Amino acid sequence: MSNTTGMANLNLTGDDGTVPTEDEVNPWEVHASSATGVDYDKLIKRFGSSPIDSALLSKFETALGQPPHFLLRRGIVFSHRDMDQILALHSQGKPFFLYTGRGPSSEAMHMGHVIPFLFTKWLQEAFNVPLVIQMTDDEKFLWKDISLETARSYTTENAKDIIALGFDPERTFIFSDLDYIGSSPEFYRNMCRVQKAVTFNQAKGIFGFTESDCIGKISFPAIQAAPSFSSSFPQIFNSRSDIPCLIPCAIDQDPYFRMTRDVAPRIGCPKPALLHSTFFPALQGCQTKMSASDANSSVFLTDTPKAVKDKINKYAFSGGGATVEEHKKNGGNCDIDVSYQYLRFFLDDDQRLEKIRQDYSSGELLTGYLKKELIELLQAFLKSHQEKRKAVTNEVVKQFMTPRKLKFDY
Amino acid sequence: MSNTTGMANLNLTGDDGTVPTEDEVNPWEVHASSATGVDYDKLIKRFGSSPIDSALLSKFETALGQPPHFLLRRGIVFSHRDMDQILALHSQGKPFFLYTGRGPSSEAMHMGHVIPFLFTKWLQEAFNVPLVIQMTDDEKFLWKDISLETARSYTTENAKDIIALGFDPERTFIFSDLDYIGSSPEFYRNMCRVQKAVTFNQAKGIFGFTESDCIGKISFPAIQAAPSFSSSFPQIFNSRSDIPCLIPCAIDQDPYFRMTRDVAPRIGCPKPALLHSTFFPALQGCQTKMSASDANSSVFLTDTPKAVKDKINKYAFSGGGATVEEHKKNGGNCDIDVSYQYLRFFLDDDQRLEKIRQDYSSGELLTGYLKKELIELLQAFLKSHQEKRKAVTNEVVKQFMTPRKLKFDY
Repeated sequence: MSNTTGMANLNLTGDDGTVPTEDEVNPWEVHASSATGVDYDKLIKRFGSSPIDSALLSKFETALGQPPHFLLRRGIVFSHRDMDQILALHSQGKPFFLYTGRGPSSEAMHMGHVIPFLFTKWLQEAFNVPLVIQMTDDEKFLWKDISLETARSYTTENAKDIIALGFDPERTFIFSDLDYIGSSPEFYRNMCRVQKAVTFNQAKGIFGFTESDCIGKISFPAIQAAPSFSSSFPQIFNSRSDIPCLIPCAIDQDPYFRMTRDVAPRIGCPKPALLHSTFFPALQGCQTKMSASDANSSVFLTDTPKAVKDKINKYAFSGGGATVEEHKKNGGNCDIDVSYQYLRFFLDDDQRLEKIRQDYSSGELLTGYLKKELIELLQAFLKSHQEKRKAVTNEVVKQFMTPRKLKFDY
Repeated sequence: MSNTTGMANLNLTGDDGTVPTEDEVNPWEVHASSATGVDYDKLIKRFGSSPIDSALLSKFETALGQPPHFLLRRGIVFSHRDMDQILALHSQGKPFFLYTGRGPSSEAMHMGHVIPFLFTKWLQEAFNVPLVIQMTDDEKFLWKDISLETARSYTTENAKDIIALGFDPERTFIFSDLDYIGSSPEFYRNMCRVQKAVTFNQAKGIFGFTESDCIGKISFPAIQAAPSFSSSFPQIFNSRSDIPCLIPCAIDQDPYFRMTRDVAPRIGCPKPALLHSTFFPALQGCQTKMSASDANSSVFLTDTPKAVKDKINKYAFSGGGATVEEHKKNGGNCDIDVSYQYLRFFLDDDQRLEKIRQDYSSGELLTGYLKKELIELLQAFLKSHQEKRKAVTNEVVKQFMTPRKLKFDY
């Protein structure tokens, strides 16, 4: 996956320096035309997905007997395809599985990469279902100027971070494309089925490929489609091809799965359902382009407490007034304040978050307070994460990445 | 492989009914503009390969201490790339391996399919080297309206015929793409390396792909390229990536390997060497389109003695005179007489063949004599082949198709 990270490459200007009039959202670039970021309502209409409304949230609560995750309640996971069908299946005691992924483009993952995985972990626990996590190291090799060996090594490093988030080893299979495609004739057969069902013209229309793109890029979408089908994992699903799939991912990955859903019935497989999340803003603000190579644009999982403090204090874009007086008078703007936006993603206490929102908007709280709150929260998260990651040995990675039976009692 | 069969789809007219002014030779169609078939000298110039001349034939004889195979001596294997380097390697006691293939488009193989394999078998025995045989069942699935299961079943049936020709089980690995790609991470890695090095534009230029072609077809050339590299078979070559490869194939497959030779140095692999054979004419003549679905256009490996006799007598195009008188007066034309052409492919006795040529050309021998000679030769070959094929059990097929160490003492 190019960008299942939830972190977006946000840019006010297009590649040619002009200001685009419409948001551009695809797996390789995200341009927001507005300073407040991508217009997600428009995106739902353009992509033809469905908004997650209060009726669906109620169905979640009924199906699970617990309130939906705060990322759902807060509209960060904001759009879906066929989620109502998945909830109905669950209520009938019928099986499904989760599929998400990560494009391992570097050793370092940042906080934005973590969000979809934390949400996926919640889904796994709430529904008690198997999960497959695709590491698209082949894609990163094709798109970037790196060797296969480097791409594969990023998979291992990223897998350690993912595992450290606490996935259940009995229900989770993490796989490197570079290893698993060469270990699973059934996965390769599904790649072939999808590759036969999509023309260059269609791939060009969906992904914007050009004739100068390498043939690996052009056929890659089939590789990201294949894990949507349970027959790609005969060792998990007892060779059944009819187990439906739910894909939690950032909305920029939707083109892959629109294509997959179009192809699925033609190859006799169920269409995957989807849950879409919004993008995680860069420190510099919703419209700033985030760069993994720019250490100042994001908080990395390897950052020290001091680095976190310095970055937030120095770079986190403020929605507050220019002076204390002005701030007290007009209040802060939560919509563009990066610290507040980050708290929405990480602070699970609804009441506390709402209080912060009110007090910041009224001008009572200064930006400094929000930053302090966020710094403490991130420092605690990272301290805990870094300890857990140390415990993830190569042996543990091997356990998660070995093709094997998972707990799946159907 | 689409057409490594040596049998060509020969047509006087193009798809649009017009007479092409130049021979068209690519993996999917062969149109000869002349009634005597493809102009191979022109093809060598167009493809940029080298003719097999008497100097190279001498080098063969020196390297092997035996005369080169009659298909080489008779100019049926007529063109090459870097064969002199392979002979030099062999003389220095350095290793290389053989790679050829078959596109299993139906259960039935015909006599034309057999030629390249008989020649490859001679190469294997003469040079005492390992051989890999790729069954491109994935390609047939992508190009034809058949299921994966059907394509895979053709592989088994065709493998039985190939094995019955007498390949050494200790030096021969036959593989189904559908199985082996999903069993070999190293093969998949080489696919990725090639797919990164070729653009759609380049593939379009080489293979004539259009935007309406499915993405599977567009990336397939990398799959036919990958077996050229010894690192695709770590179990055979002890993970060495530097063992050179020699590919015997019909000339229509050259586009795949021109591409492969272009890519090889860029991915740090040796360029494969090639030996090109001419096409095996259809019963109806050099310019007639051969169709595997037309039982009357070719002699199948399953044909009964009676069927062989009837087909040759009824369909084999004659180069003789319209009447016996005319024939006696003007002589027969060996260049267009299909029976004579077939004898060139199958009769290993040079002196006898030359005598037949002289006596037919002078008008002394009638077409009936050539047909009788050919019928007896083919009936004997098929009787023996059909017996050997019966002995090829599924167990034997499994033995040849299991990824394993081969005899390779370097």
